[in-house]
Amino acid sequence: MHGDCLVSADAPARAKGAGAEGFQAQLTRWQERMERALAARLPESSVAPSRLHEAMRYVVLGGGKRIRPALLFATAHAVGLTEDDVEAAACAIELVHVYSLVHDDLPAMDDDDLRRGRPTCHKAYDEATAILVGDGLQPLAFQVLALDRNLPAAPAIRLRLVEILAHASGSLGMAGGQAIDLAVQGKALDVAQVEDMHARKTGALIRASVMMAAACAPGLAPHLHAALAEFAAAIGLAFQIQDDLLDVLGDATTLGKPTGHDQARAKPTYPAVVGVAAAQQRMHELHARAFAALEPFGHRADSLRRLSDWLLARRS
Amino acid sequence: MHGDCLVSADAPARAKGAGAEGFQAQLTRWQERMERALAARLPESSVAPSRLHEAMRYVVLGGGKRIRPALLFATAHAVGLTEDDVEAAACAIELVHVYSLVHDDLPAMDDDDLRRGRPTCHKAYDEATAILVGDGLQPLAFQVLALDRNLPAAPAIRLRLVEILAHASGSLGMAGGQAIDLAVQGKALDVAQVEDMHARKTGALIRASVMMAAACAPGLAPHLHAALAEFAAAIGLAFQIQDDLLDVLGDATTLGKPTGHDQARAKPTYPAVVGVAAAQQRMHELHARAFAALEPFGHRADSLRRLSDWLLARRS
Repeated sequence: MHGDCLVSADAPARAKGAGAEGFQAQLTRWQERMERALAARLPESSVAPSRLHEAMRYVVLGGGKRIRPALLFATAHAVGLTEDDVEAAACAIELVHVYSLVHDDLPAMDDDDLRRGRPTCHKAYDEATAILVGDGLQPLAFQVLALDRNLPAAPAIRLRLVEILAHASGSLGMAGGQAIDLAVQGKALDVAQVEDMHARKTGALIRASVMMAAACAPGLAPHLHAALAEFAAAIGLAFQIQDDLLDVLGDATTLGKPTGHDQARAKPTYPAVVGVAAAQQRMHELHARAFAALEPFGHRADSLRRLSDWLLARRS
Repeated sequence: MHGDCLVSADAPARAKGAGAEGFQAQLTRWQERMERALAARLPESSVAPSRLHEAMRYVVLGGGKRIRPALLFATAHAVGLTEDDVEAAACAIELVHVYSLVHDDLPAMDDDDLRRGRPTCHKAYDEATAILVGDGLQPLAFQVLALDRNLPAAPAIRLRLVEILAHASGSLGMAGGQAIDLAVQGKALDVAQVEDMHARKTGALIRASVMMAAACAPGLAPHLHAALAEFAAAIGLAFQIQDDLLDVLGDATTLGKPTGHDQARAKPTYPAVVGVAAAQQRMHELHARAFAALEPFGHRADSLRRLSDWLLARRS
């Protein structure tokens, strides 16, 4: 029930990589690129207010799988863009993702002490700083979309990116999903309700990662745009089911945070509602559906395929 | 030391209004317009997640002086725009202002129970909801700027609005000012440090209100743009000094929140640093400087003049 059984049968072959570099090397390169890209866009700790900027750098830098940026880079490959074309958008979405972790970890929310194996922001600093770190990262994301010189210049594209990110992170997306998550603790949900919660809480930002990269390619044919939307919806839900499974089956050392956390708080997770085996089955179905959606892209979607395999096989 | 001495000598005459309507009638009309405009842009409480949307409507609607929107409307008059042209931008800035109040009121921040004479969000709902209300209002503001049909259509203008609002509300603006405010409690600051804190904490959004309206008029001559920036900086600081004075001299009933609050927490306010008389003197100087900046606009700036008089004479 652990680890490899979560990987689809042909994943290891693909993960070795048909491209110029193996997938692990590509992922590491993306992570290093993001570390530099984010560091360059965050105010230096020496800039006033220093403590706030130091805390913003603490939560954003020095780790993170950078899954959402990886989705942007891989989608860029699929639609014929360079990684440079989407780097700023990748920073914007990662800033929003990190702010959401900082706020979710607060005592009034999930009350977590550890994140990526390090003290959470309110533990390393204090609660007020953690609130303000989130409140500072969010507008920085929109500022990057509005101003960053590395994005394609057309204002209409930038505006579309603002629109996608704002919708995905707002009360109808991520923030709304978190509200539902808190409201349903200890309640019995059916599968449709759990899927709806997941679609908002993590799915919205996962989908936005793919669709922001697509939006950077304004000439993209409508059927390819629709195919990416289909891929993104499937992979977003599969990813969250995998996250739920990791909480049940995972290992706290690899995960960098305690496991069994959701169960302890009676959170209605996917495996809690349908059982582990059915959850794995559903994840595999979604994995297959995501791959079917990528067919029209041929080999240009190989980065997306390898990333999807890795996302659904990860142990942390 | 109370009330009328805060009003500049010629204010009552202007406040009666040279325009088609008296200033109080104009302000009431603006407030009613904003109530409708904000209500139309917030998700209905019936939309899931209902409790979050109900709380967002609770904090945004049913009151508020709408000072920042009023600055946008009055600036629109000065630069030859209609109120319709800036209504969406006014909504965006008010949504950011309200989110900041909700987060500032949290127990880990200013720990306030009352706001506008009603229970604060975390008192009326709970702390997690209050955090998420703020996190939901912020992207809604950017969504309005990106999408709203009532804004001038040019994407470049909308992007400039995103940029101004993001910068004003971020770690170098409002959120940074709040971080400084929390960090300096109980510390001795000099006047320059208090002015710097004020320029960020409230000044940034006040300036942004004026400059967003200016940005909606892309043909505005550079010297008029500079004049509005000068006006906005002066009125922003004067406004915060008046706020500090109200905390010392004001009346909790009119104010809708307790007075003497800043003193009780040893916040280094303007009057605490320089004394009440010197603070009033500085406010009058800034008032005069703001008016001098408006000279090139002639009578077109009368709405801004009357609004400024009202802002610096208000008792709540």
